[in-house]
Amino acid sequence: DIPRKDSQSSSSSKGEDVVTPWDVSAEAATGVDYDKLIVRFGVKKINDDLIDRLERLTGKKAHPMLRRGMFFAHRDFAQILDRYEKKEPFFLYTGRGPSSRSLHLGHLLPFFFTKYLQDALDVPLIIQMTDDEKFIWKDLTVEESKRMTKENMKDIISVGFDPEKTFIFQDFDYMCAPFYENIVKIWKYVTGNQARSIFGFIGEDSMGKAAFPAIEAAPCFASSFPHIFKGRKDIACLIPCGIDQDPYFRMCRDVAHKLGSPKPSLIYNKFLPALQGAQSKMAASDVNSCIYLSDTTKQIKTKINKYAFSGGQPTKEEHMEKGGDCDVDISYQFLTYFLEDDDRLDDIRKKYTKGEMMTGELKAIAIEEITRLITEMQIRRAAISDSVLDLFTSVRPLKYT
Amino acid sequence: DIPRKDSQSSSSSKGEDVVTPWDVSAEAATGVDYDKLIVRFGVKKINDDLIDRLERLTGKKAHPMLRRGMFFAHRDFAQILDRYEKKEPFFLYTGRGPSSRSLHLGHLLPFFFTKYLQDALDVPLIIQMTDDEKFIWKDLTVEESKRMTKENMKDIISVGFDPEKTFIFQDFDYMCAPFYENIVKIWKYVTGNQARSIFGFIGEDSMGKAAFPAIEAAPCFASSFPHIFKGRKDIACLIPCGIDQDPYFRMCRDVAHKLGSPKPSLIYNKFLPALQGAQSKMAASDVNSCIYLSDTTKQIKTKINKYAFSGGQPTKEEHMEKGGDCDVDISYQFLTYFLEDDDRLDDIRKKYTKGEMMTGELKAIAIEEITRLITEMQIRRAAISDSVLDLFTSVRPLKYT
Repeated sequence: DIPRKDSQSSSSSKGEDVVTPWDVSAEAATGVDYDKLIVRFGVKKINDDLIDRLERLTGKKAHPMLRRGMFFAHRDFAQILDRYEKKEPFFLYTGRGPSSRSLHLGHLLPFFFTKYLQDALDVPLIIQMTDDEKFIWKDLTVEESKRMTKENMKDIISVGFDPEKTFIFQDFDYMCAPFYENIVKIWKYVTGNQARSIFGFIGEDSMGKAAFPAIEAAPCFASSFPHIFKGRKDIACLIPCGIDQDPYFRMCRDVAHKLGSPKPSLIYNKFLPALQGAQSKMAASDVNSCIYLSDTTKQIKTKINKYAFSGGQPTKEEHMEKGGDCDVDISYQFLTYFLEDDDRLDDIRKKYTKGEMMTGELKAIAIEEITRLITEMQIRRAAISDSVLDLFTSVRPLKYT
Repeated sequence: DIPRKDSQSSSSSKGEDVVTPWDVSAEAATGVDYDKLIVRFGVKKINDDLIDRLERLTGKKAHPMLRRGMFFAHRDFAQILDRYEKKEPFFLYTGRGPSSRSLHLGHLLPFFFTKYLQDALDVPLIIQMTDDEKFIWKDLTVEESKRMTKENMKDIISVGFDPEKTFIFQDFDYMCAPFYENIVKIWKYVTGNQARSIFGFIGEDSMGKAAFPAIEAAPCFASSFPHIFKGRKDIACLIPCGIDQDPYFRMCRDVAHKLGSPKPSLIYNKFLPALQGAQSKMAASDVNSCIYLSDTTKQIKTKINKYAFSGGQPTKEEHMEKGGDCDVDISYQFLTYFLEDDDRLDDIRKKYTKGEMMTGELKAIAIEEITRLITEMQIRRAAISDSVLDLFTSVRPLKYT
């Protein structure tokens, strides 16, 4: 029998968190149990030694999301550092399935971190936009998917990537012989049964869904981009992305040797919680769970004040007496992602936990920091014309030492 | 449960002939029961009215294989004639999965007929070489499949196609955005269950097998070839091919309206029998069942003398008394395909049936005719250099009135 999604190894058994490329939900108010997920997916926890080594090699302080455990797990990240140390070539690959509106903070997380990696490691970056995936999964036309994707690409560019070292493509436009050859190779070496057991597809799913995993996996291989890597197969790949994407790359790693290429390495982030609380991730399917790149200052303020789940006590008196719970407080959680100053963050935690800081004050800080971040991006976003987009998407060599 | 190949609608129940894109075998010595197949596949028999109309419209006598019922069935062929009459545009599409050696006569059948159609109808012709399919199904590398395909393309060109009106492509080289867009659309509109019920794939089959049907179907749509049809979606398509390919186009016809394009029309040929008899088709998997384009005069003679199943009687005396059976005699069957002279063919049939012609004589005629055909093609084949091949495969406009 064709197994159903909810009986899949990559999704939940009874009482387990659900983490698949299409669905994330947690049992606990503190969100997904990532330690359990590490065991279930067979990935490795990022430890201090690995972070120290990265800092030592790059001569740069690690990104706050790495120091604070938001980028929490990996596959063979150490082998990328080995390559960096030996000055052997590798590249970064990440991507996005386009969303109907502008991107939200949850979508942007891996890109913030990828920007840090690009700067610290000075390597080419490939960004795949899966407009084909959205067309297959959603009720929209190819033209709608492509148009939406172009807007999303501009959002991503506004993170601040270097056009000389970054190639962004959308599948519908880039599809070409070298990319297709890698897709077909992956198709050949994975059976329908294996794909179903990894992704949980059912018989009513379209042929497109069953074909798609190879299309997300193929950019792991440098030979998909001859204009950048000149047909070389031995250039390794590091993928920063959400842990929910692991099924694609687990599959890809299993076949990499048959393509004569190294297994891709991965570094995984946790999900940015929804405003309503960490049981679910920030998701475009619920507008009120998200802060969008296109939100106004007023919208950000209203959303955080109105929806951001609070770890505070019901009354001022009770809060001053018992203190707040940072582990479930979404305003505080957001600050752990976006407030760079470690000392200030620590100070906020202490004060809120002791009840010295009120929920209103904490929300005000979160509003200020997120408004600052979004406003900075909006200013850059406004400057991104179609010709700037062309700069990133044109098929060309990248600067690459 | 995932259905197995042998329980599929397109293959056989107990006592039925097996006809799938991968497998053909018949119960009777006279070969596949094509009348039953017409009912099972839901196609239409080609009748004399249709042939008369084609002759009247084109001002040319119909091809012997059409007059004699080797091209025996169709889907919406009349609608192509309507278009021809109204001077509305359409094109021819056929193809080939590359074979390990040079092509054999069974492979070449649809191409002989397609050449006649191209000349008679004066329309562009698209030929797809599914090097990706062979790579997915067989134990060979991409490079081997591509190299073999180039040789096969030269074989096909030696049929005599007009380079100004013919575009030949191999999937691994041609794959591009407009072609891919049509593939993804087909993927979206066919479920895994539907594909399994049409093609009989099982869980152990690779993802590639499950993804491939859309790749053979997509060239039915003119928008896959913007260099020829300038993005138009309303140009119809006529596909001459073996009846075993019907599953691909049945699927394609069901989704055509969702791509905003006309359903492809089809004209189907019977299988050229193996030398050993009509229970099986001439198949590259059994070298001795085939006459290859690369066979020497001596090999042709030996194969027909040694292997061609005879409808004659055991002794000369008995043969003269009872006569031979043309319906099972492979030498005679070959002549029905390749001897153009109707009167002579009729004369041979009468004489052999009455026992006035011996098996040796009949074989000698078959050897002579097939040697002539193969020798003519070999002369043209020898002149087909890589630059002639490039003439046919380069992405360019076609001459098209």
